[in-house]
Amino acid sequence: MNTPFRTIWTTEDRYVEVIDQRQLPHEFVTVRLETYEDAEEAIKEMIVRGAPLIGATAAYGIYLAVREMVEEQLNGSFLDQAFSDLRASRPTAVNLFWALDKMRDALDNSSGDFIETAWNAAAAIVEEDVETCRMIGVHGLTLIEEIAQRKKGDVVNILTHCNAGMLGCVEWGTVTSPIYQAQQKGIKVHVWVDETRPRNQGSNLTAYELTRHNVPHTLIVDNAGGHLMQHGMVDMVIVGTDRTTRQGDVANKIGTYLKALAANDNNIPFYVALPSTTLDMSINNGLTEIPIEERNQDEVRYMIGKGKNGKIQPVLICPETTPASNFGFDVTPARLVTKIITERGICGASEAGLLNLFPEFK
Amino acid sequence: MNTPFRTIWTTEDRYVEVIDQRQLPHEFVTVRLETYEDAEEAIKEMIVRGAPLIGATAAYGIYLAVREMVEEQLNGSFLDQAFSDLRASRPTAVNLFWALDKMRDALDNSSGDFIETAWNAAAAIVEEDVETCRMIGVHGLTLIEEIAQRKKGDVVNILTHCNAGMLGCVEWGTVTSPIYQAQQKGIKVHVWVDETRPRNQGSNLTAYELTRHNVPHTLIVDNAGGHLMQHGMVDMVIVGTDRTTRQGDVANKIGTYLKALAANDNNIPFYVALPSTTLDMSINNGLTEIPIEERNQDEVRYMIGKGKNGKIQPVLICPETTPASNFGFDVTPARLVTKIITERGICGASEAGLLNLFPEFK
Repeated sequence: MNTPFRTIWTTEDRYVEVIDQRQLPHEFVTVRLETYEDAEEAIKEMIVRGAPLIGATAAYGIYLAVREMVEEQLNGSFLDQAFSDLRASRPTAVNLFWALDKMRDALDNSSGDFIETAWNAAAAIVEEDVETCRMIGVHGLTLIEEIAQRKKGDVVNILTHCNAGMLGCVEWGTVTSPIYQAQQKGIKVHVWVDETRPRNQGSNLTAYELTRHNVPHTLIVDNAGGHLMQHGMVDMVIVGTDRTTRQGDVANKIGTYLKALAANDNNIPFYVALPSTTLDMSINNGLTEIPIEERNQDEVRYMIGKGKNGKIQPVLICPETTPASNFGFDVTPARLVTKIITERGICGASEAGLLNLFPEFK
Repeated sequence: MNTPFRTIWTTEDRYVEVIDQRQLPHEFVTVRLETYEDAEEAIKEMIVRGAPLIGATAAYGIYLAVREMVEEQLNGSFLDQAFSDLRASRPTAVNLFWALDKMRDALDNSSGDFIETAWNAAAAIVEEDVETCRMIGVHGLTLIEEIAQRKKGDVVNILTHCNAGMLGCVEWGTVTSPIYQAQQKGIKVHVWVDETRPRNQGSNLTAYELTRHNVPHTLIVDNAGGHLMQHGMVDMVIVGTDRTTRQGDVANKIGTYLKALAANDNNIPFYVALPSTTLDMSINNGLTEIPIEERNQDEVRYMIGKGKNGKIQPVLICPETTPASNFGFDVTPARLVTKIITERGICGASEAGLLNLFPEFK
């Protein structure tokens, strides 16, 4: 599993490493996680980001806490603290809670060797994500193939927002999995990459991984998608999600809702690629029931990039005294979502559609 | 007229000065224009921007060309070249063509002293813009007052995109004129300022002039408006326009269309403030008939701001090899525009509405 082509991997001495995604696309730096606090910080500081990768990192965070507890002979309250700190590290991504619950279950049912139990449970979460993403690609590929056939082999133009790529997961990605599989099958694809202010996950991460995979792509500002759709330059939109409700409302990176409106206004299909771990079947209305994280205003007031001196640095883009607001996510109502692409297949953005594929939630 | 509170003014030796708006909000630098080529460069390089200010600058550019022609005893082809160079300096702003036509008319009808004729004609264009903007404010103010009354004196939250402020005009601005007049009348207003990638006219210019006028405001990324509207945090949207068609389609800074869709989806009024000089009654369908300027891709690939060393500098925000697309404007269809605010009053975004206020276009 120790491979640079994943976003999280383990070392020979059984610690964990991740890519410092804040340095991408300019530098490839890895970070070693030796304590659960390291994992917590990696999530909080967005060294890692993307719902599935946050879940995987939190799972390994619990493994690291268990290891420290056993090796240092700490009592159970240390582990409880780890669970609660990790649970509080990001408020919106439901995978985080899912992964932590899974780790708790594994430990509760452990027959003795807690370290080994946590190690295996975290690894299982990682492997499950890889397989889930692969299957999202298998199903999503059929949607790209349909358009390619309709366009008689012409390039299929796909717009995406933020990064729901392999960098947000472990391998494959969710949104990028159908794209990578289409490319492997010889279908001509081109991706419009929303830069995704304020943190530029599009220009920093999606552009980076598409470059590494040789997928043709063009960076656009978040303002541009509507114009491109009005002029027939977008065949489909695929986005990821941090949390999707029972009725199919989709919380995703701020700005997603605006692209859904434009797709709807121009009869362009708007797809959401999701692993079922991001489903939150306990809530219905995304607009009223999903808490939206507010982040530091300096993420808006400053822009980070590589200066002429080669160093990654922030630049101030507004008057010194101007305040900023920084909501991290918005909610796209189910009515604007054409279909949801999951690891089990494609369904409508509705309770009926979701329950058809996931009857265990009935 | 020589006052720093305007965006363009004349000097004692009868040359012209403007603010180098590329340095705002970090530095207040003025640029002296002595030739029509200086004026052309000021427009092309976006030292000045905003449809009315572009028109005023082009008008003074013609004055400078006339002066040079007379003083240097050049022949008429020099002036023809000036007209054609200035006409080509930006493709989308219709005020540019209007101002140049007005200068041509004045010169064609001149009784002799060409320099004096051009000087007066340019000054008249500038004064007309000031009065036009003031009147847009008088009419637009009534819309803000209505909301203030409905909210029983609570803060009126106004979202705007790009800069259609005094910095885009000579004084008052178009979008900002109702806001400044509301503030002067003691109405509590707060402005959500879209940063307006790629050139950040919102964070650089709108935030700057609102700061100078002490208008409460908050900077947001272009992605945020939809979320704010979904949650009742926006009472009205007011934007400017670079060209509006006979049927009321509105070309404005890229991203405007997305905000119009969100306003429409949330029953929030979406107003366009325009001087009638930006009307192009010769065309109907904005989507098919308005040419959209494509600008240098590095405006997207780089972000400009003030670094920690205090210098204004660009930072690269994507992989070195990633290409970008950079359309400058989009078109908001008339169906999404609640009302148009002009210097003569408020009307529907339709041919009937516009002709009611401007019967001379019948």
